[in-house]
Amino acid sequence: MNTKDRNLIINTLTFWDNLNEIEKNLILNNITSVNYQLGEHIHSSGTDCIGVLIIKSGGIRTYILSEDGRDITLYRLSAGDICILSASCILENITFAVHIDAEVDSEAFLISTAIFEQLYRQNIYVENFAYKDTIDRFSDVMWAMQQILFMSFDKRLAIFLLKESTNTNSATLHLSHEQIAKYISSAREVVSRMLKYFANEGIVKLARGEVTLLDKTKLKKLLV
Amino acid sequence: MNTKDRNLIINTLTFWDNLNEIEKNLILNNITSVNYQLGEHIHSSGTDCIGVLIIKSGGIRTYILSEDGRDITLYRLSAGDICILSASCILENITFAVHIDAEVDSEAFLISTAIFEQLYRQNIYVENFAYKDTIDRFSDVMWAMQQILFMSFDKRLAIFLLKESTNTNSATLHLSHEQIAKYISSAREVVSRMLKYFANEGIVKLARGEVTLLDKTKLKKLLV
Repeated sequence: MNTKDRNLIINTLTFWDNLNEIEKNLILNNITSVNYQLGEHIHSSGTDCIGVLIIKSGGIRTYILSEDGRDITLYRLSAGDICILSASCILENITFAVHIDAEVDSEAFLISTAIFEQLYRQNIYVENFAYKDTIDRFSDVMWAMQQILFMSFDKRLAIFLLKESTNTNSATLHLSHEQIAKYISSAREVVSRMLKYFANEGIVKLARGEVTLLDKTKLKKLLV
Repeated sequence: MNTKDRNLIINTLTFWDNLNEIEKNLILNNITSVNYQLGEHIHSSGTDCIGVLIIKSGGIRTYILSEDGRDITLYRLSAGDICILSASCILENITFAVHIDAEVDSEAFLISTAIFEQLYRQNIYVENFAYKDTIDRFSDVMWAMQQILFMSFDKRLAIFLLKESTNTNSATLHLSHEQIAKYISSAREVVSRMLKYFANEGIVKLARGEVTLLDKTKLKKLLV
């Protein structure tokens, strides 16, 4: 392992100084490199529990899914971040299920569940670290929840349109008002009304099954 | 302090055995009794940070408020529960604001922020306890979030209960959670959890093999 990688690991695992030599070697000798491709599935609670990820490059997204396939983003992580919920089976008091995907091609270091669990059970600083990181994510989730529940509707729609445009790398989104309503947890009539308003403002152009973004600058102003 | 109260405190504070005598006395000599009346405001992040509450009787509710006054219940706590978010100023990585009210007349023991913070900083087991309890609440919040965002299941259950009540011409349904789950193609655990949620909301009353509808208006509101 090169010095840069070693430093990333040691600096990210803030319990490092509270490990004895055996524990340090347990990590260094067992940590593995993993690569995920854009869109690749990393974790679903209930089915897998791969371990703790230290993200080296790229980015991952944690989300929840409804029975009918609606998808709510909880938070995103990028280089230098730790992903603890991919080892959520270790934390007995996490009773919810999340999904984790790679948003772009990503590299990470993986401490397997078996290794991390051993350290978590024998060293209270490791346990503490896992909890602390989980609470950071709790704060992220509360933020997301407030955005979704309390943000004015024009903002939510603007964020969605901009994100879709970025994701599909296109100014024209092939989506019906019904589909958009589903994605942002709203009703078709509400979406149609706001899109018509956006069209009047010259922000979008509407066609059957299509929304074309004409003025992204104006759309972004709604986010402020 | 009587033995019963002392036992409640010691049993609730699961780090008790990891305290030294000085630390134990610090709690016992400084813990105070507090009473809250129905509807009384206990905590708002940003304005107060009273400390950790051990609920002796009654019940409290934690919720978030939108700017326009919408109110979303995150979770409820009752006798024997610990309220840690009323000391959230101690946990640096909690960056969200919640409100806490008494739902009924309630009694609690209060460990002030100053005392709890001292223990939290000097004893890692206390720190651990605070984190663990916060993660329990994270799980509660995720559950609430899924209910609110993915309304499908509570609607299905509400529709079923109302229909059954009409069909049998009775507010009391003689059905086990297992039977209900079968009828609406779900799992018993999911039904039990939702019924418990309905019970907390005052919508139904639960007894062995029975569900009694207490508030049909509230139940019908779920269908909208």
